[in-house]
Amino acid sequence: MTEIPCTHPRFASLKIRTLIEEGVAQGITSTAGLIAHGRGEAFDYLLGEDTYDFALEAMYEAVKVLKTAKHPIISVNGNTAVLVPDSIVKLSKIIQAPLEVNIFHSSKEREVAIANHLQKHGAENVLLPSSDTELTGLESNRRFVNPEGIAKADVVFVPLEDGDRCEYLVKRGVRVITVDLNPLSRTARTSHITIVDNVVRAIPALINLLLNTPTNSSKSFSNREILIRAEKKLRAFSQCS
Amino acid sequence: MTEIPCTHPRFASLKIRTLIEEGVAQGITSTAGLIAHGRGEAFDYLLGEDTYDFALEAMYEAVKVLKTAKHPIISVNGNTAVLVPDSIVKLSKIIQAPLEVNIFHSSKEREVAIANHLQKHGAENVLLPSSDTELTGLESNRRFVNPEGIAKADVVFVPLEDGDRCEYLVKRGVRVITVDLNPLSRTARTSHITIVDNVVRAIPALINLLLNTPTNSSKSFSNREILIRAEKKLRAFSQCS
Repeated sequence: MTEIPCTHPRFASLKIRTLIEEGVAQGITSTAGLIAHGRGEAFDYLLGEDTYDFALEAMYEAVKVLKTAKHPIISVNGNTAVLVPDSIVKLSKIIQAPLEVNIFHSSKEREVAIANHLQKHGAENVLLPSSDTELTGLESNRRFVNPEGIAKADVVFVPLEDGDRCEYLVKRGVRVITVDLNPLSRTARTSHITIVDNVVRAIPALINLLLNTPTNSSKSFSNREILIRAEKKLRAFSQCS
Repeated sequence: MTEIPCTHPRFASLKIRTLIEEGVAQGITSTAGLIAHGRGEAFDYLLGEDTYDFALEAMYEAVKVLKTAKHPIISVNGNTAVLVPDSIVKLSKIIQAPLEVNIFHSSKEREVAIANHLQKHGAENVLLPSSDTELTGLESNRRFVNPEGIAKADVVFVPLEDGDRCEYLVKRGVRVITVDLNPLSRTARTSHITIVDNVVRAIPALINLLLNTPTNSSKSFSNREILIRAEKKLRAFSQCS
């Protein structure tokens, strides 16, 4: 892997990209995950690679929901595992929610590799999907869940979710919190709370809010309004200098 | 590889994605190439996956420059080789420019695989980078060039270039023509002529212009103005349902 000089104008983005590439070598990320990461890079680029008020407000709402959840679960795929292993483990401990490995393309080996990776980063409560517990009506491998995890969760925090399962969970009455750089995606539009931000910035920021912000505010929250603001930012013409 | 039904709403995009994934299996595309393709997918999606006037005007200018070049070279990386092998070979023959294999991440095997792939598609003049000929001051593997190719070129046509080398070539006085779906990228902004389009559509369209359009027009060309129009189009995406 080429060493990236820290003076490079695209250093942060290239550093993250390297993590994803290493994830493939480690059997954690899929090739489809690489392409998905590229799509995320494009949206992040257009958004100016920053965390905006619409993301912070969604995080604030997420904090409120996570703090009052009875059975919160964090659903982790390959990209999340390689991009933010330390922060996702930390989040899991703070909100006392298990990390449930759940991936779109079926691969037992990759599920185990993800679980091992999370444990190496300090995770104490990692659940694997069970072939006996299925969300009926879903096509993708995401339908297999753990009976002690997503199957009985009242709140699912799932960065980088897919549209089908998101719709399914919401229909089932589960509260879904997601992180998605595309404010127009089905996941973004279906979730109860959409944090339009890069997971690399969003998870640490969410932890910071969790640890340092009182949650007694009664400010109302509209995900639709959040997404409209995010889309406006995405459309805001910058310049080609 | 999953068979994609031709009735699928994303058929064209998924077909292209399959080419790139097969390119990895054939040792032609790198994992970084997959991520780059994902970025391209997102930009193309937002642009409505179409070829616009700003792309055609840039192609028209490219035709003029290529027809009057003394030593034109086509710089080919893994993604270009798997996405448009036939058209890039055809372009090489029409403008009598060698195809020079040049990739960002060092890999002798991948360079040879790309050259073989191009030859299988009819290429007669393929150059490989030489470890003796280096563009000094560049960090990436893109610095190694062929003494009969990029090293002495006055015009480099390089779809999917990287920002560093593009800046380098331009500083050196070489005229650079690129194809880049991101009008904000360093490459797009540094090149003399930026065709903001998908290579899959752009190379055949360029060939069509080359064969069928007289070049005696004196219409002035501003790449900056082209990029502003492309960015406006990008930010004005319609609905992604």
